[in-house]
Amino acid sequence: MFFNFTGESDIAADEFYMKQALKEAYLALEADEVPIGSVIVCKNRVIARGHNLTERLNDVTAHAEMQAITAAANHLGGKYLADCTLYVTMEPCVMCAGALYWSQIGRIVFGAYDPKRGFSRILPNPLHPKTEFVGGILGNECGLLVKEFFRKKRQ
Amino acid sequence: MFFNFTGESDIAADEFYMKQALKEAYLALEADEVPIGSVIVCKNRVIARGHNLTERLNDVTAHAEMQAITAAANHLGGKYLADCTLYVTMEPCVMCAGALYWSQIGRIVFGAYDPKRGFSRILPNPLHPKTEFVGGILGNECGLLVKEFFRKKRQ
Repeated sequence: MFFNFTGESDIAADEFYMKQALKEAYLALEADEVPIGSVIVCKNRVIARGHNLTERLNDVTAHAEMQAITAAANHLGGKYLADCTLYVTMEPCVMCAGALYWSQIGRIVFGAYDPKRGFSRILPNPLHPKTEFVGGILGNECGLLVKEFFRKKRQ
Repeated sequence: MFFNFTGESDIAADEFYMKQALKEAYLALEADEVPIGSVIVCKNRVIARGHNLTERLNDVTAHAEMQAITAAANHLGGKYLADCTLYVTMEPCVMCAGALYWSQIGRIVFGAYDPKRGFSRILPNPLHPKTEFVGGILGNECGLLVKEFFRKKRQ
Protein backbone atom coordinates (compact mmCIF):
# COMPACT_ATOMS: atom_id res chain seq x y z
CA MET A 1 0.00 0.00 0.00
CA PHE A 2 1.59 3.23 -1.15
CA PHE A 3 0.68 6.88 -1.12
CA ASN A 4 2.90 9.45 -2.73
CA PHE A 5 2.54 12.41 -0.43
CA THR A 6 4.68 15.43 0.20
CA GLY A 7 5.06 15.54 3.95
CA GLU A 8 4.44 13.62 7.17
CA SER A 9 1.58 15.90 8.18
CA ASP A 10 -0.15 16.03 4.81
CA ILE A 11 -3.90 15.82 5.49
CA ALA A 12 -4.66 13.92 2.25
CA ALA A 13 -2.10 11.29 3.22
CA ASP A 14 -3.52 11.04 6.72
CA GLU A 15 -7.01 10.56 5.30
CA PHE A 16 -5.71 7.98 2.84
CA TYR A 17 -4.18 5.87 5.57
CA MET A 18 -7.11 6.44 7.91
CA LYS A 19 -9.29 4.86 5.23
CA GLN A 20 -7.01 1.85 5.44
CA ALA A 21 -7.57 1.76 9.18
CA LEU A 22 -11.32 2.06 8.54
CA LYS A 23 -11.14 -1.01 6.28
CA GLU A 24 -9.75 -2.87 9.27
CA ALA A 25 -12.56 -1.48 11.44
CA TYR A 26 -15.12 -2.87 8.97
CA LEU A 27 -13.44 -6.29 9.24
CA ALA A 28 -13.99 -6.08 13.01
CA LEU A 29 -17.63 -5.12 12.40
CA GLU A 30 -18.13 -8.15 10.14
CA ALA A 31 -16.83 -10.32 12.99
CA ASP A 32 -19.26 -8.62 15.42
CA GLU A 33 -16.39 -6.98 17.26
CA VAL A 34 -16.29 -3.34 18.40
CA PRO A 35 -15.36 -1.80 15.01
CA ILE A 36 -11.94 -0.25 15.54
CA GLY A 37 -9.08 -0.68 13.08
CA SER A 38 -5.48 0.34 12.81
CA VAL A 39 -2.57 0.38 10.39
CA ILE A 40 1.09 1.26 10.91
CA VAL A 41 2.89 3.11 8.14
CA CYS A 42 6.64 3.29 7.65
CA LYS A 43 8.26 5.13 4.75
CA ASN A 44 4.91 5.55 2.96
CA ARG A 45 4.02 1.88 3.23
CA VAL A 46 1.53 0.03 5.40
CA ILE A 47 3.68 -2.48 7.30
CA ALA A 48 1.10 -3.73 9.78
CA ARG A 49 -2.66 -3.97 10.23
CA GLY A 50 -4.91 -4.88 13.10
CA HIS A 51 -8.53 -4.80 14.16
CA ASN A 52 -10.21 -5.34 17.45
CA LEU A 53 -10.53 -9.06 18.28
CA THR A 54 -11.25 -9.02 22.00
CA GLU A 55 -14.32 -11.25 21.66
CA ARG A 56 -12.93 -13.78 19.22
CA LEU A 57 -9.63 -14.11 21.09
CA ASN A 58 -11.36 -13.84 24.47
CA ASP A 59 -8.62 -11.39 25.43
CA VAL A 60 -9.03 -7.81 26.65
CA THR A 61 -5.56 -6.97 25.33
CA ALA A 62 -6.47 -7.75 21.69
CA HIS A 63 -7.10 -4.14 20.66
CA ALA A 64 -6.39 -3.09 17.07
CA GLU A 65 -3.35 -1.02 18.05
CA MET A 66 -1.77 -3.77 20.17
CA GLN A 67 -1.91 -6.18 17.28
CA ALA A 68 -0.57 -3.60 14.85
CA ILE A 69 2.36 -2.76 17.20
CA THR A 70 3.31 -6.44 17.52
CA ALA A 71 2.95 -7.00 13.76
CA ALA A 72 5.02 -3.91 12.90
CA ALA A 73 7.83 -5.01 15.22
CA ASN A 74 7.77 -8.44 13.59
CA HIS A 75 7.93 -6.83 10.17
CA LEU A 76 10.81 -4.53 11.07
CA GLY A 77 12.73 -7.06 13.15
CA GLY A 78 13.05 -4.51 15.93
CA LYS A 79 10.66 -3.47 18.64
CA TYR A 80 11.02 0.31 18.33
CA LEU A 81 8.77 2.16 15.89
CA ALA A 82 10.37 5.62 15.92
CA ASP A 83 10.10 5.96 12.12
CA CYS A 84 6.48 4.82 11.98
CA THR A 85 3.02 6.40 12.15
CA LEU A 86 0.10 4.56 13.70
CA TYR A 87 -3.36 5.26 12.27
CA VAL A 88 -6.29 4.16 14.38
CA THR A 89 -9.98 4.90 14.00
CA MET A 90 -10.53 5.74 17.69
CA GLU A 91 -8.38 7.58 20.18
CA PRO A 92 -6.15 4.96 21.84
CA CYS A 93 -7.08 3.87 25.36
CA VAL A 94 -4.68 4.00 28.31
CA MET A 95 -3.41 0.45 27.62
CA CYS A 96 -2.66 1.18 23.97
CA ALA A 97 -1.11 4.57 24.78
CA GLY A 98 1.15 2.80 27.29
CA ALA A 99 2.17 0.27 24.64
CA LEU A 100 2.78 3.11 22.16
CA TYR A 101 5.01 4.77 24.76
CA TRP A 102 7.19 1.68 24.98
CA SER A 103 7.33 1.43 21.17
CA GLN A 104 8.60 5.04 20.94
CA ILE A 105 6.40 5.44 17.87
CA GLY A 106 7.07 8.61 15.90
CA ARG A 107 3.51 9.72 15.27
CA ILE A 108 -0.09 8.77 16.10
CA VAL A 109 -3.07 9.78 13.98
CA PHE A 110 -6.49 8.89 15.34
CA GLY A 111 -10.03 9.30 14.08
CA ALA A 112 -12.74 9.85 16.69
CA TYR A 113 -11.95 11.22 20.14
CA ASP A 114 -12.91 8.98 23.06
CA PRO A 115 -13.71 11.25 26.00
CA LYS A 116 -14.42 8.28 28.30
CA ARG A 117 -11.41 6.00 27.78
CA GLY A 118 -9.05 7.95 25.51
CA PHE A 119 -5.48 8.62 26.64
CA SER A 120 -5.67 12.40 26.20
CA ARG A 121 -7.74 12.79 29.38
CA ILE A 122 -4.96 11.40 31.62
CA LEU A 123 -2.04 13.23 33.16
CA PRO A 124 0.82 13.32 32.67
CA ASN A 125 0.66 12.64 28.92
CA PRO A 126 1.43 8.90 28.74
CA LEU A 127 3.05 9.04 25.29
CA HIS A 128 6.79 9.12 24.64
CA PRO A 129 8.15 12.69 24.58
CA LYS A 130 9.18 12.20 20.94
CA THR A 131 5.71 11.02 19.81
CA GLU A 132 3.55 13.53 17.93
CA PHE A 133 -0.16 13.00 17.66
CA VAL A 134 -3.20 14.39 15.90
CA GLY A 135 -6.87 13.47 16.37
CA GLY A 136 -10.10 13.96 14.44
CA ILE A 137 -8.99 12.66 11.03
CA LEU A 138 -12.20 11.27 9.45
CA GLY A 139 -13.45 11.48 13.01
CA ASN A 140 -17.16 11.51 12.16
CA GLU A 141 -17.09 8.35 10.08
CA CYS A 142 -14.82 6.56 12.57
CA GLY A 143 -16.96 7.55 15.54
CA LEU A 144 -20.29 6.82 13.88
CA LEU A 145 -19.21 3.26 13.15
CA VAL A 146 -18.69 2.56 16.86
CA LYS A 147 -21.81 4.47 17.96
CA GLU A 148 -24.00 2.52 15.50
CA PHE A 149 -22.45 -0.75 16.68
CA PHE A 150 -23.41 -0.08 20.29
CA ARG A 151 -26.83 1.35 19.35
CA LYS A 152 -27.68 -1.91 17.56
CA LYS A 153 -26.34 -3.95 20.49
CA ARG A 154 -28.72 -2.13 22.85
CA GLN A 155 -31.78 -2.80 20.68
CA MET B 1 -0.27 -24.21 43.63
CA PHE B 2 -2.34 -23.80 46.79
CA PHE B 3 -2.16 -21.73 49.96
CA ASN B 4 -4.65 -22.23 52.71
CA PHE B 5 -5.16 -18.70 53.98
CA THR B 6 -7.90 -17.03 55.91
CA GLY B 7 -8.68 -13.90 53.94
CA GLU B 8 -8.04 -12.09 50.66
CA SER B 9 -5.83 -9.52 52.34
CA ASP B 10 -3.79 -11.92 54.47
CA ILE B 11 -0.16 -10.73 54.34
CA ALA B 12 1.30 -14.25 54.57
CA ALA B 13 -0.78 -15.30 51.56
CA ASP B 14 0.28 -12.21 49.64
CA GLU B 15 3.93 -12.96 50.38
CA PHE B 16 3.44 -16.58 49.40
CA TYR B 17 2.06 -15.67 45.99
CA MET B 18 4.55 -12.86 45.54
CA LYS B 19 7.28 -15.48 45.91
CA GLN B 20 5.63 -17.30 43.01
CA ALA B 21 5.78 -14.10 40.99
CA LEU B 22 9.45 -13.75 42.02
CA LYS B 23 10.13 -17.24 40.63
CA GLU B 24 8.82 -15.95 37.31
CA ALA B 25 11.04 -12.88 37.61
CA TYR B 26 14.07 -15.15 38.07
CA LEU B 27 13.09 -17.01 34.88
CA ALA B 28 13.17 -13.65 33.08
CA LEU B 29 16.60 -12.95 34.62
CA GLU B 30 17.93 -16.29 33.35
CA ALA B 31 16.78 -15.27 29.87
CA ASP B 32 18.56 -11.89 30.25
CA GLU B 33 15.23 -10.07 30.31
CA VAL B 34 14.29 -7.28 32.74
CA PRO B 35 13.43 -9.50 35.73
CA ILE B 36 9.75 -8.95 36.38
CA GLY B 37 7.32 -11.78 37.04
CA SER B 38 3.63 -12.20 37.64
CA VAL B 39 1.05 -14.79 38.65
CA ILE B 40 -2.73 -14.62 38.72
CA VAL B 41 -4.57 -16.34 41.55
CA CYS B 42 -8.20 -17.40 41.55
CA LYS B 43 -9.82 -19.20 44.49
CA ASN B 44 -6.44 -19.83 46.14
CA ARG B 45 -4.90 -21.31 43.02
CA VAL B 46 -2.35 -19.95 40.59
CA ILE B 47 -4.14 -20.06 37.25
CA ALA B 48 -1.64 -18.11 35.14
CA ARG B 49 2.01 -17.12 35.10
CA GLY B 50 4.10 -14.75 33.06
CA HIS B 51 7.48 -13.11 32.94
CA ASN B 52 8.87 -10.31 30.90
CA LEU B 53 9.82 -11.45 27.39
CA THR B 54 10.12 -8.18 25.49
CA GLU B 55 13.58 -8.99 24.14
CA ARG B 56 12.99 -12.61 23.19
CA LEU B 57 9.65 -11.85 21.54
CA ASN B 58 10.89 -8.53 20.16
CA ASP B 59 7.64 -7.02 21.39
CA VAL B 60 7.20 -4.10 23.77
CA THR B 61 3.80 -5.46 24.80
CA ALA B 62 5.23 -8.72 26.19
CA HIS B 63 5.23 -7.61 29.83
CA ALA B 64 4.74 -10.21 32.57
CA GLU B 65 1.26 -8.93 33.44
CA MET B 66 0.04 -8.89 29.84
CA GLN B 67 0.97 -12.52 29.38
CA ALA B 68 -0.60 -13.49 32.70
CA ILE B 69 -3.86 -11.65 31.82
CA THR B 70 -4.09 -13.46 28.48
CA ALA B 71 -3.23 -16.83 30.06
CA ALA B 72 -5.77 -16.37 32.88
CA ALA B 73 -8.54 -15.55 30.41
CA ASN B 74 -7.62 -18.67 28.43
CA HIS B 75 -7.73 -20.73 31.61
CA LEU B 76 -11.10 -19.36 32.72
CA GLY B 77 -12.68 -19.30 29.27
CA GLY B 78 -13.80 -15.74 29.89
CA LYS B 79 -11.98 -12.46 29.55
CA TYR B 80 -13.03 -10.84 32.85
CA LEU B 81 -10.95 -11.50 35.94
CA ALA B 82 -13.17 -10.03 38.65
CA ASP B 83 -12.57 -12.97 41.00
CA CYS B 84 -8.81 -12.95 40.52
CA THR B 85 -5.77 -11.34 42.13
CA LEU B 86 -2.73 -10.39 40.07
CA TYR B 87 0.65 -10.55 41.80
CA VAL B 88 3.50 -8.78 40.07
CA THR B 89 7.00 -8.00 41.30
CA MET B 90 6.97 -4.37 40.07
CA GLU B 91 4.23 -1.76 40.04
CA PRO B 92 2.40 -2.15 36.71
CA CYS B 93 3.14 0.42 34.01
CA VAL B 94 0.46 2.47 32.27
CA MET B 95 -0.01 -0.15 29.53
CA CYS B 96 -0.49 -2.98 32.02
CA ALA B 97 -2.76 -0.88 34.25
CA GLY B 98 -4.87 -0.14 31.18
CA ALA B 99 -5.09 -3.85 30.38
CA LEU B 100 -5.98 -4.60 34.02
CA TYR B 101 -8.77 -2.00 33.76
CA TRP B 102 -10.30 -3.84 30.83
CA SER B 103 -9.98 -7.18 32.66
CA GLN B 104 -11.90 -5.77 35.65
CA ILE B 105 -9.49 -7.71 37.87
CA GLY B 106 -10.56 -7.88 41.51
CA ARG B 107 -7.23 -7.12 43.16
CA ILE B 108 -3.65 -6.20 42.32
CA VAL B 109 -0.70 -6.86 44.63
CA PHE B 110 2.65 -5.52 43.52
CA GLY B 111 6.17 -5.67 44.93
CA ALA B 112 8.41 -2.66 44.28
CA TYR B 113 6.99 0.76 43.49
CA ASP B 114 8.05 2.25 40.16
CA PRO B 115 8.07 6.02 40.58
CA LYS B 116 9.09 6.58 36.93
CA ARG B 117 6.67 4.37 34.98
CA GLY B 118 4.23 3.02 37.57
CA PHE B 119 0.49 3.59 37.12
CA SER B 120 -0.01 5.20 40.53
CA ARG B 121 1.58 8.48 39.38
CA ILE B 122 -1.09 9.10 36.72
CA LEU B 123 -4.47 10.76 37.09
CA PRO B 124 -7.23 9.82 37.12
CA ASN B 125 -6.52 6.36 38.58
CA PRO B 126 -6.51 4.14 35.48
CA LEU B 127 -7.75 1.00 37.26
CA HIS B 128 -11.33 -0.24 37.28
CA PRO B 129 -13.36 1.29 40.16
CA LYS B 130 -13.87 -2.23 41.58
CA THR B 131 -10.14 -3.08 41.57
CA GLU B 132 -8.32 -2.95 44.92
CA PHE B 133 -4.57 -2.72 45.03
CA VAL B 134 -1.69 -2.89 47.49
CA GLY B 135 2.01 -2.25 46.86
CA GLY B 136 5.28 -2.95 48.64
CA ILE B 137 4.82 -6.70 49.27
CA LEU B 138 8.39 -8.10 49.31
CA GLY B 139 9.17 -4.77 47.69
CA ASN B 140 12.87 -4.72 48.59
CA GLU B 141 13.65 -8.10 47.05
CA CYS B 142 11.53 -7.38 43.97
CA GLY B 143 13.10 -3.97 43.44
CA LEU B 144 16.68 -5.07 44.10
CA LEU B 145 16.40 -7.72 41.39
CA VAL B 146 15.64 -5.07 38.76
CA LYS B 147 18.18 -2.56 40.12
CA GLU B 148 20.96 -5.18 40.03
CA PHE B 149 19.98 -6.17 36.50
CA PHE B 150 20.38 -2.63 35.24
CA ARG B 151 23.53 -2.01 37.31
CA LYS B 152 25.19 -4.99 35.63
CA LYS B 153 23.98 -3.87 32.19
CA ARG B 154 25.67 -0.50 32.73
CA GLN B 155 29.03 -2.07 33.68
